[in-house]
Amino acid sequence: MALRTRLTDRLGIEHPILLAPMGSASGGRLAAAVTAAGGLGLIGGGYGDADWLEREFAQAGNARVGCGFITWSLARKPHLLDQVLLRSPAAIMLSFGALRPFAQIVKTAGAPLICQVQTMAHAREAVEAGADIIVAQGAEAGGHGVSRATLTIVPEIADYLARSAPATLLLAAGGIADGRGLGAALMLGADGVLIGSRFWASEEALVPESFKAAAVAASGDDTIRTTVVDVARKIDWPQPFTARVMKTRFTMQWHGRETELAEPAVVEREMERCLDAATRGDVDNTGVFVGEAVALIRDIRPAGVILRQIVREAEELLGRKAPSFLGAR
Amino acid sequence: MALRTRLTDRLGIEHPILLAPMGSASGGRLAAAVTAAGGLGLIGGGYGDADWLEREFAQAGNARVGCGFITWSLARKPHLLDQVLLRSPAAIMLSFGALRPFAQIVKTAGAPLICQVQTMAHAREAVEAGADIIVAQGAEAGGHGVSRATLTIVPEIADYLARSAPATLLLAAGGIADGRGLGAALMLGADGVLIGSRFWASEEALVPESFKAAAVAASGDDTIRTTVVDVARKIDWPQPFTARVMKTRFTMQWHGRETELAEPAVVEREMERCLDAATRGDVDNTGVFVGEAVALIRDIRPAGVILRQIVREAEELLGRKAPSFLGAR
Repeated sequence: MALRTRLTDRLGIEHPILLAPMGSASGGRLAAAVTAAGGLGLIGGGYGDADWLEREFAQAGNARVGCGFITWSLARKPHLLDQVLLRSPAAIMLSFGALRPFAQIVKTAGAPLICQVQTMAHAREAVEAGADIIVAQGAEAGGHGVSRATLTIVPEIADYLARSAPATLLLAAGGIADGRGLGAALMLGADGVLIGSRFWASEEALVPESFKAAAVAASGDDTIRTTVVDVARKIDWPQPFTARVMKTRFTMQWHGRETELAEPAVVEREMERCLDAATRGDVDNTGVFVGEAVALIRDIRPAGVILRQIVREAEELLGRKAPSFLGAR
Repeated sequence: MALRTRLTDRLGIEHPILLAPMGSASGGRLAAAVTAAGGLGLIGGGYGDADWLEREFAQAGNARVGCGFITWSLARKPHLLDQVLLRSPAAIMLSFGALRPFAQIVKTAGAPLICQVQTMAHAREAVEAGADIIVAQGAEAGGHGVSRATLTIVPEIADYLARSAPATLLLAAGGIADGRGLGAALMLGADGVLIGSRFWASEEALVPESFKAAAVAASGDDTIRTTVVDVARKIDWPQPFTARVMKTRFTMQWHGRETELAEPAVVEREMERCLDAATRGDVDNTGVFVGEAVALIRDIRPAGVILRQIVREAEELLGRKAPSFLGAR
């Protein structure tokens, strides 16, 4: 029994679940594991490192995987898109920034174009750029995002697409980590979900074990949206994006004091502290990018086991009437 | 066909929908209309005005309605609880503040005790105080709240209650305005929902028509959480509460400049501006308390029509398998 939706039909996958292309965490093994379990894995292009991308696509082996980019960062290294398109990716996802000229390049190459959006203005831009799939990302998501909640932005965009671009599919992202979240997303009008944090806390994720253990121990109250970790790393994220991270000692020491943190002498010291701690897996002294969904993470398992459990739970909740959701929008 | 849950059984109502006791907006007529349609209406005790409460309970006539209080404000006027308990309310809801000694007084009087919470610490306090029903309120809600999203705090509290207080019921609040939201809430493990903004934008709500029209025209991107309206009114809300309001000219003029706004000469002028504009229904020059669910509000209808449509949509989405949700947690 499968949870068929327009997404599974369109992408030719078994379950309506995509792996979020989390920079540095979503490597080839994780992406391949999600694909092998019937979803679709997206490798995290992050800020763009050609060697890292080569290595991780190699790690994915023959698995059908896609790739996601931080769009404003890709604009500084546009050749990376060409490099990835040579791999015939299963899809390209663009998030955070102006879609031109990349959207057209992706479409010309024949790869499905996924655009992640955080506001209605973003959603309209994605439709204009010809997105095949829009990911509506709520602020409960880990990592970068804006301020809308998944619970309201998904149905608002569903209504907009029904009027303006009925063939464009819609995924929900942010706060979804189990079958309850998948079931809720389908109720809200999504054709599927994009899951980050729950797969970040999987065996295959390229994440220090100490970070994963911290996520298992955390409540959903233990995360915060902030610019601290970007300021400390001197990464100039544009407005209005902030990042959800754990309330570690490092983050809470500087949250609200970002101007002081940005002073040259301070930031050099804190950048070294932050990056060094990340390498050593020292949770206290760095930024740990994870969403409110930590509330629902109780163990570290292989990604395929996690995915199948999410699907099983959702099917159970939907009372095995899942096919009735097809075209529910 | 009814959407039966543990909530409908416990309260003896037909549909698992409660009216949020919105201060000044949820009067007797609105509460009675929600009850008449098969939900349960709660009159909004707000900051506590004995005459207003008398009048609105009278407006509710013989309808079975409850009442909600801002707990930290009730602590300054504790006699209001006794006044309302003499009316044999269908339930008492306490939000925002220390539950003692009110929880015990409500329980001794035999009224169901509903506690609205915004964090896991609040949820534990509510269980310790003997709450019959916990409302998990996400930050997408209009008016006062904290920062968690409905999508993650509902399942986190559902898991907590399953372990620690399985007889305590759970409602979802924040961002729910249609059958999709109700369906999603049931998926997440809630026994029902508490709805504010959608009923605030109903014919019976004690809200200026111009405010309702602004909500119909707004997107979910047009609201913000801020302390501006409280600072301007010199209402000393405790940390960590902020309020979601529309991005009106007044609010956006002062958001981020709260310290300046609080200066004596400034605040007297702006308080008069804000309160006067509210009286005149001048949206631009005041605070308009409404949630991200404005995204989903397209018309102003009688509350009973709204409620029945929400239920019909949810039943449709649930594929008429609603009874399978009983005890799904």
